Amino acid sequence: MASIFTRIINGEIPCYKIAEDDHYFAFLDINPLAKGHTLVIPKEETDYYFNLSDEQMAGISVFAKKVAKAIGKTMPCKRVGVAVLGLEVPHAHIHLIPINDLGDINFLKPKLKLTQPEFTEIAEKISSAL
Amino acid sequence: MASIFTRIINGEIPCYKIAEDDHYFAFLDINPLAKGHTLVIPKEETDYYFNLSDEQMAGISVFAKKVAKAIGKTMPCKRVGVAVLGLEVPHAHIHLIPINDLGDINFLKPKLKLTQPEFTEIAEKISSAL
Repeated sequence: MASIFTRIINGEIPCYKIAEDDHYFAFLDINPLAKGHTLVIPKEETDYYFNLSDEQMAGISVFAKKVAKAIGKTMPCKRVGVAVLGLEVPHAHIHLIPINDLGDINFLKPKLKLTQPEFTEIAEKISSAL
Repeated sequence: MASIFTRIINGEIPCYKIAEDDHYFAFLDINPLAKGHTLVIPKEETDYYFNLSDEQMAGISVFAKKVAKAIGKTMPCKRVGVAVLGLEVPHAHIHLIPINDLGDINFLKPKLKLTQPEFTEIAEKISSAL
């Protein structure tokens, strides 16, 4: 069965898309730790991040960098942080999270509740800075 | 002035080294969140991770993957997680952290206190699995 992320890539489940190329896809996390929290995934379904091929690992990292730069330009923060855990959805994904403090990457923290217009505005801002 | 990490690379400050090539270096974090918590850095000093060149971004990611695989083989954990924050030492670094739960990546948690023989043993185990 396709992962929820594959269904997002295929348009079966809606998302707030940020960027896409032949191999990678970026969209807003709908349970964000911060405004602009984005997920970057390979289109090819692989569960464990470190099982990506060297070529995919290099490709997704460079793709994520472009997205992170756009997040940094548009979402107020000291840095765009990175996290990969892989304990929930079995489709490798990189979290890009605007951060200001050491405690800002903590997946047990309450997530932000944003409205659809807020998500849309954030996605448009980040996309337009790409 | 050279960053503390550059001084580690140059051997001016001791470390528990895991791996090294022409461009990248990996060593144990001495304030670890888990046994096997490792830092991966570029030898060239760059403060912000996302200011690495595309070539460096690709290179460090593939290098980190090799190190993460060795950590995963030797340190009991569900996954090897990744975190990049960049709020403290101004020399880009990737944290590779053995994780079992969503709360395991949280830099405000108390760090493990390990003895020199424990660090040495961990470094030898991971290095030997490379």
